[in-house]
Amino acid sequence: MEKFFAIIPAAGRGVRMGGNQPKQFLDLHGKPILVRTLETFCRMELLAGILLVLPEPFVRDTRSLLQAHMGMEPAGGQGVPSSPDQAPWFGIECAAGEKAQKFVRFVAGGVERQHSVSNALGQLPADCGWVVIHDGVRPFASPDLIRRTCDLGMASGAAIAALPSTDTVKRVENGAVIETLARESIWFVQTPQVFRRGLILRAYEEAGRQGWIGTDDASFVERLGHPVAVAPGERSNIKVTTPEDLEWGESYLKRLCGSDISSAERGGHASGLRL
Amino acid sequence: MEKFFAIIPAAGRGVRMGGNQPKQFLDLHGKPILVRTLETFCRMELLAGILLVLPEPFVRDTRSLLQAHMGMEPAGGQGVPSSPDQAPWFGIECAAGEKAQKFVRFVAGGVERQHSVSNALGQLPADCGWVVIHDGVRPFASPDLIRRTCDLGMASGAAIAALPSTDTVKRVENGAVIETLARESIWFVQTPQVFRRGLILRAYEEAGRQGWIGTDDASFVERLGHPVAVAPGERSNIKVTTPEDLEWGESYLKRLCGSDISSAERGGHASGLRL
Repeated sequence: MEKFFAIIPAAGRGVRMGGNQPKQFLDLHGKPILVRTLETFCRMELLAGILLVLPEPFVRDTRSLLQAHMGMEPAGGQGVPSSPDQAPWFGIECAAGEKAQKFVRFVAGGVERQHSVSNALGQLPADCGWVVIHDGVRPFASPDLIRRTCDLGMASGAAIAALPSTDTVKRVENGAVIETLARESIWFVQTPQVFRRGLILRAYEEAGRQGWIGTDDASFVERLGHPVAVAPGERSNIKVTTPEDLEWGESYLKRLCGSDISSAERGGHASGLRL
Repeated sequence: MEKFFAIIPAAGRGVRMGGNQPKQFLDLHGKPILVRTLETFCRMELLAGILLVLPEPFVRDTRSLLQAHMGMEPAGGQGVPSSPDQAPWFGIECAAGEKAQKFVRFVAGGVERQHSVSNALGQLPADCGWVVIHDGVRPFASPDLIRRTCDLGMASGAAIAALPSTDTVKRVENGAVIETLARESIWFVQTPQVFRRGLILRAYEEAGRQGWIGTDDASFVERLGHPVAVAPGERSNIKVTTPEDLEWGESYLKRLCGSDISSAERGGHASGLRL
């Protein structure tokens, strides 16, 4: 049986958001952004495990973070996935009292996002047949979106979540308009992006060989000539990259969760720890 | 001396935002969205007046609204612009105690935005040489952005505010990716858009004659073959079209203005009135 694994790149070191922490570790309504993303993936039944890609200097602190927020412990016994590089797996749980549990391991990131994903692709367990890649700083993807994209990926070999543009879009060069594009066909790319393992490995190998640079994973698959299907994304599935995004996220969660952060919301774990 | 006039289309009747009011009349941190937009334009020294395009059935209530929020009164005496259709002009002020004052008049909107703008173009005073068009539901454009776009428009005949994409953008048709676009050249169009009067009139005449449909004003100018310059826009200059946008706007203003709405914030005018 071919298993589904998630790769979650969270290796950015940018501190443009202010403070001295990369954005994936910033607090969002009581929990670090990355913890919120992991909680959603932790609940996905179809997933066998998660490869979390981190900036090397942050691996140790992230362990403490996941121990505090997600009860992380070394995984043992039956069912623990293999690691080609012998790195250990851990068990995390989404919330105290919930049954959902997931295997997770750490992979050191590269300079650019595509190097980080490439590192993780090299560390997939042998029985992995499908890969879902999702940005660590997109904490609002719904389980339904992830499931739909995975279903479409399994049907077609490659699928991405994307949203049609609601703005007028133009091609601009040197400060002047070149053309107005047909709005109906312009879509913004999100994650998750889902691929048959062999296909995404081949696409990244070719990217490495040819020196392709891409801002998303599917672009390499497209360059192989393989079709990529599109699952309608979600407006709330934003990438948290600016202080405004963080603020929007706070108010979004306040509406969803109420303004008080209950202990259930905090996952029932000790939560004082901050990186 | 050729004067600058603003056209502010606010003729949408959509009530998708909930409630029974078109979105331009919804409250945003203590004031209707449209009032916030008008306040900004009221402060622009280069402007001689504003043509406000409204859904016909809302003209009367909007008058009451502007009387309450902006001390609107019939304009008289020297300096009042002409109206080709003899419609009256009013004086509005941005805030009690401030000197800034501006002439404004009402134009009935059409079915689509482009019909609304077309109606207003037909009602420009004789001494108008330049037109700045700005969506009534973009209340966060800064005076600096408006000024920069006007300067660029005067230098080039046509200029728009736009923002480069931070997302990966693809062309998608029938649920499949056609191509990934070069992100650096993809820009989202905003308003203000600024035009030499003769140029935008000619562009709209041609659009009417040829049956062109466009989601922004500059697209018609482009189709004439006239260059359109691009002024870097602002991320905060959003079009308020969804409940999420309104929520973001609330939190944005809370940050800018503090959480208490002072009487100065309310413009010093009676503010109980709601449409």
